Amino acid sequence: MSLSKNKIKYIRSLKEKKFRSEHHTFVAEGTKLVTDLLTSCRCQFLAALPETLTAYPVLKAEEMVEASESELAKATFQKTAPQMIAVFYQPDHPANQMQLRGRLSLALDGVQDPGNVGTIMRIADWFGIDQIICSPDTADIYNPKTVQATMGAIARVKACYGDLPVLFAGYGDLPIYGTFLEGADIYRETLSGEGVIVLGSEGKGIGRETERLINRKLFIPSFPTGRATSESLNVSAAAAVVCAEFRRRQH
Amino acid sequence: MSLSKNKIKYIRSLKEKKFRSEHHTFVAEGTKLVTDLLTSCRCQFLAALPETLTAYPVLKAEEMVEASESELAKATFQKTAPQMIAVFYQPDHPANQMQLRGRLSLALDGVQDPGNVGTIMRIADWFGIDQIICSPDTADIYNPKTVQATMGAIARVKACYGDLPVLFAGYGDLPIYGTFLEGADIYRETLSGEGVIVLGSEGKGIGRETERLINRKLFIPSFPTGRATSESLNVSAAAAVVCAEFRRRQH
Repeated sequence: MSLSKNKIKYIRSLKEKKFRSEHHTFVAEGTKLVTDLLTSCRCQFLAALPETLTAYPVLKAEEMVEASESELAKATFQKTAPQMIAVFYQPDHPANQMQLRGRLSLALDGVQDPGNVGTIMRIADWFGIDQIICSPDTADIYNPKTVQATMGAIARVKACYGDLPVLFAGYGDLPIYGTFLEGADIYRETLSGEGVIVLGSEGKGIGRETERLINRKLFIPSFPTGRATSESLNVSAAAAVVCAEFRRRQH
Repeated sequence: MSLSKNKIKYIRSLKEKKFRSEHHTFVAEGTKLVTDLLTSCRCQFLAALPETLTAYPVLKAEEMVEASESELAKATFQKTAPQMIAVFYQPDHPANQMQLRGRLSLALDGVQDPGNVGTIMRIADWFGIDQIICSPDTADIYNPKTVQATMGAIARVKACYGDLPVLFAGYGDLPIYGTFLEGADIYRETLSGEGVIVLGSEGKGIGRETERLINRKLFIPSFPTGRATSESLNVSAAAAVVCAEFRRRQH
């Protein structure tokens, strides 16, 4: 069986959020990413080169087909054809069932760029943060650019969407961190192994409504301190520095 | 005077490295970025909305024109028309004149993604690292995606291209750092305020020839230590963590 025109059309339609939501599915490409995802997500459909299917005999999907390079080239969102493309069902992680106590979580407040969201998920995975709460205006984690940028972290880190002020209500005593230019030097503050680290949008930072919920304002010092520089770090660079510093304290 | 079709064609041609090299110029967009660059780079050509030109009376360029929104929309590489587009001459920073002693520098060994290169330049700027040495196969810093991702850092951080093994020759006693999965825990190592931090390509890491020059191999611990995770951090996330840690020690 080969990769049909209809299936190619279906895969390509999943570039758009509208169709991803309708089918409750998303696309992952590349042997490494797909095999990572197979450990945690239900696979609706998988297409791969015949030799790739032979090399991975334990692959499991509701439907599986051999595909030629030219068929994969038509289906892919990448510049070059991958050896494997798969469609997965979106896992359900209801926002109101996320447990915020006893662990560190990330919250994204309007992060716009799908690449940044994917990179942040990969950072979370590296630093053992296994859940991310996204505001409704944050880029879709099932955007193909996000999925690819996670490099497999999407198989291990749970993500949900919800209204941050609503979700944080009732957690008044929980440390909720965010970085601000007027925040306190992160290297001089107590950092807890429990709480939420909020990351703001690329252009506007953390929104006003969310800012009110933040009870620990942090700042990553530039060097030399106080020097005029770029006004800020990119959101994923800031995420990396903050997550690394939280975990350094727990070493 | 308005933005002519020829000028629009010229600006758009500078998306390609071939034409950037031929003219020794590059494009920057947006009032913030252009005004930042005007402090350090010679401007060949500047186009902006009439009201923007009025608001910034001190702008200085060899040629300056008023442009309509629709003209700027034709010239831009962005999704929406900026208020200002300018063409700058590429500054000359000969690789063999970069001074590696008495300071920290970054070296990029085959970083492919223009966005990553721009983000790394912004990180360097934040942490007071004012020069970046790029291997010849690193993405062009004058790629429009890189220029925009620097958010103005390109006006303050010097960059050059050159063969890393050749440039590092004769610096045998200088600390040359790089991150490797088998490196030593960065939090337990002595980090100097002098030396070079090498960052490798997204897919392949630091090349073999460059690896031989690295005399301090570092590792950013994942959390919990030793846990199976994403195999690595994105190169710009790693750059952020490493630069932050070097500067934290100097606080």
